[in-house]
Amino acid sequence: MASPEFPSLERSLEEHLPPDELRNVRRILLGGEPRKLSLPAEALAAASELDFELAAFGFEAAEEQLRPARLVRVGLVQNRLPLPPCAPVAEQVGALHRRIEEMVAVAAQCGVNVVCFQEAWTMPFAFCTREKLPWTEFAESAEDGPTTRLCQRLARAHGLVVVSPILERDEAHGDVLWNTAVVVSSSGAVLGKSRKNHVPRVGDFNEATYYMEGTLGHPVFQTPFGRIAVNICYGRHHPLNWLLYSLNGAEIIFNPSATVGALSEALWPIEARNAAIANHCFTCAINRVGVERFPREFTSGDGKPAHRDFGYFYGSSYVSAPDGRRTPGLSRTRDGLLVAELDLNLCRQTGDIWNFKMTGRLGMYAEELTAAAQPDYRPHIVKE
Amino acid sequence: MASPEFPSLERSLEEHLPPDELRNVRRILLGGEPRKLSLPAEALAAASELDFELAAFGFEAAEEQLRPARLVRVGLVQNRLPLPPCAPVAEQVGALHRRIEEMVAVAAQCGVNVVCFQEAWTMPFAFCTREKLPWTEFAESAEDGPTTRLCQRLARAHGLVVVSPILERDEAHGDVLWNTAVVVSSSGAVLGKSRKNHVPRVGDFNEATYYMEGTLGHPVFQTPFGRIAVNICYGRHHPLNWLLYSLNGAEIIFNPSATVGALSEALWPIEARNAAIANHCFTCAINRVGVERFPREFTSGDGKPAHRDFGYFYGSSYVSAPDGRRTPGLSRTRDGLLVAELDLNLCRQTGDIWNFKMTGRLGMYAEELTAAAQPDYRPHIVKE
Repeated sequence: MASPEFPSLERSLEEHLPPDELRNVRRILLGGEPRKLSLPAEALAAASELDFELAAFGFEAAEEQLRPARLVRVGLVQNRLPLPPCAPVAEQVGALHRRIEEMVAVAAQCGVNVVCFQEAWTMPFAFCTREKLPWTEFAESAEDGPTTRLCQRLARAHGLVVVSPILERDEAHGDVLWNTAVVVSSSGAVLGKSRKNHVPRVGDFNEATYYMEGTLGHPVFQTPFGRIAVNICYGRHHPLNWLLYSLNGAEIIFNPSATVGALSEALWPIEARNAAIANHCFTCAINRVGVERFPREFTSGDGKPAHRDFGYFYGSSYVSAPDGRRTPGLSRTRDGLLVAELDLNLCRQTGDIWNFKMTGRLGMYAEELTAAAQPDYRPHIVKE
Repeated sequence: MASPEFPSLERSLEEHLPPDELRNVRRILLGGEPRKLSLPAEALAAASELDFELAAFGFEAAEEQLRPARLVRVGLVQNRLPLPPCAPVAEQVGALHRRIEEMVAVAAQCGVNVVCFQEAWTMPFAFCTREKLPWTEFAESAEDGPTTRLCQRLARAHGLVVVSPILERDEAHGDVLWNTAVVVSSSGAVLGKSRKNHVPRVGDFNEATYYMEGTLGHPVFQTPFGRIAVNICYGRHHPLNWLLYSLNGAEIIFNPSATVGALSEALWPIEARNAAIANHCFTCAINRVGVERFPREFTSGDGKPAHRDFGYFYGSSYVSAPDGRRTPGLSRTRDGLLVAELDLNLCRQTGDIWNFKMTGRLGMYAEELTAAAQPDYRPHIVKE
């Protein structure tokens, strides 16, 4: 894995490559020179004061005759825990609420219309421990828990849509837990929720000890700023998950995540970007930052000695466009807000160019998958 | 697009980054330091003499108690046309046959067990022209055309499996054309064929003028060196295409392609690699090299003046492993042979770690896709 203190791939290239080589490398790596947006001076000053990275890029589309440009600004927030996991639950939640309030205020100054936080943003990613208390105390009602109420206040105050991934306590169904993203409209109303459809059993990701696969399907939310969906964390490894959000009309798919260097860093630049390409939509991949040290030791099923942390979360949040372009990633080490201005007209334009929906042969695959899902499926293997 | 003469991303990084930064960058970009294989001196000398790049890398797996390592060497061949498209058909085919014979002999010296050539390797990629003659004259029988007979001789002479993508003339079904890969066993027998399942209508890729989508499904070929499949060119943009080859048991999926810089270069490192990750298998992406200049001008549906070439094919062939590692790409500008030693045990090992098949919820997606393929499907959109 890359070392925890390595700040970012893109910065390394910028520092060391001669300008013409950098241009060629960026065309291959990022799909072209990223177009930087200029931001208000007060937002830049606030980000510096509050010690987080602030970067902003734009993706334009071609001009059309019948549709005006549909410009939307998304904000991706990545952050470390302000307090350690050993602090009292209420204090940890309070500190995270305050941090996010600060960062959302800057997002609003930057004209952000839809902001998305990292997975399970109100808590440490404690599922590595397999302990229940105190971690399950971070779970809240998606409809009217304190975090959703905070998001409603933020949405109304700033006129933006908030995507808030939390650990949900579902009191209406026997108090079970879910990994859920709450979508709050810019009006302040809870528009709905989306649940993690695929639950990992890999490395220290012992989430299956806490919650099951979501049963809400692949909802897409019509907001004043376009149709959005939320593919939570490990769901990004499953191309079918992205596809179904896209078939339901998503123009932007957020992927709030929590993932660590040793496991997934080489996969990170690939999967959400592939999904943007394959589905003619924008994707927004968000990862938390830093090392979270737990009060009690646990093992990792790898034969190594017990220890107290999960490894380091490498940030690197980024946005991919349907035509394969992407922004540079945010830092691997610092809190950050990535602003991206998207012209949503690019989705249909790219689809009309590449035609993956038209050439996708959905009916054939529906039949083949139905067959493959049968208990007595026999793979099509040709032998000599 | 990156400029035609830019030799390769990886070489640029090697030349300019300090060693410790290069290590960090490679861990993120390639999933780690590529393990170079040493090759016989006579192979290196022959490659130099014959003016093609020769590179070799290895992907190891963990040792198991019940299965020995299953080492397979694949060879990916990328090349430019030895003769221009205006040369007589028979001479062009003959020159390509001779070039491939030379390169396969070197592959055999390097211990390659399965060799794969680029898409429609016996001809210029003339589908941009929309002309029928003389280009349809390059079509051959998959079962006993001169190219298949050449591949049978090569297979027997060197004891290797040959994957030979050609333009097929299907005489048994009314003389229609297909874009087909013929798989020849190391015994010299034609093991079977696989056809391009998705046909592009993008840019100058006017292939739909010449042939239709394949109807052979997603066959996987059991060879003495593991189970292989062939996802031809534009099929790499369709995650379901990769998935079905994988569900049928493919351990290595070849992706012989012909694609040009302006259109797809930013997508190239993403899609085949994502498929390796998502499906716990190896993928081998192959692209041709150079500019092919046609005798008569054609237009590109972009309002620009008529012209005689398709743009440049940027090579950059590479192999991806199921754990997300990849080899550096071959050159963007030169003929090349990429040798990769794969321990196929890594496929099941990676599946047991990441579990994408187990967590993939195939039955749910079979139902959702069946619904989505209906003419009256109503997307799941939540409104305020």
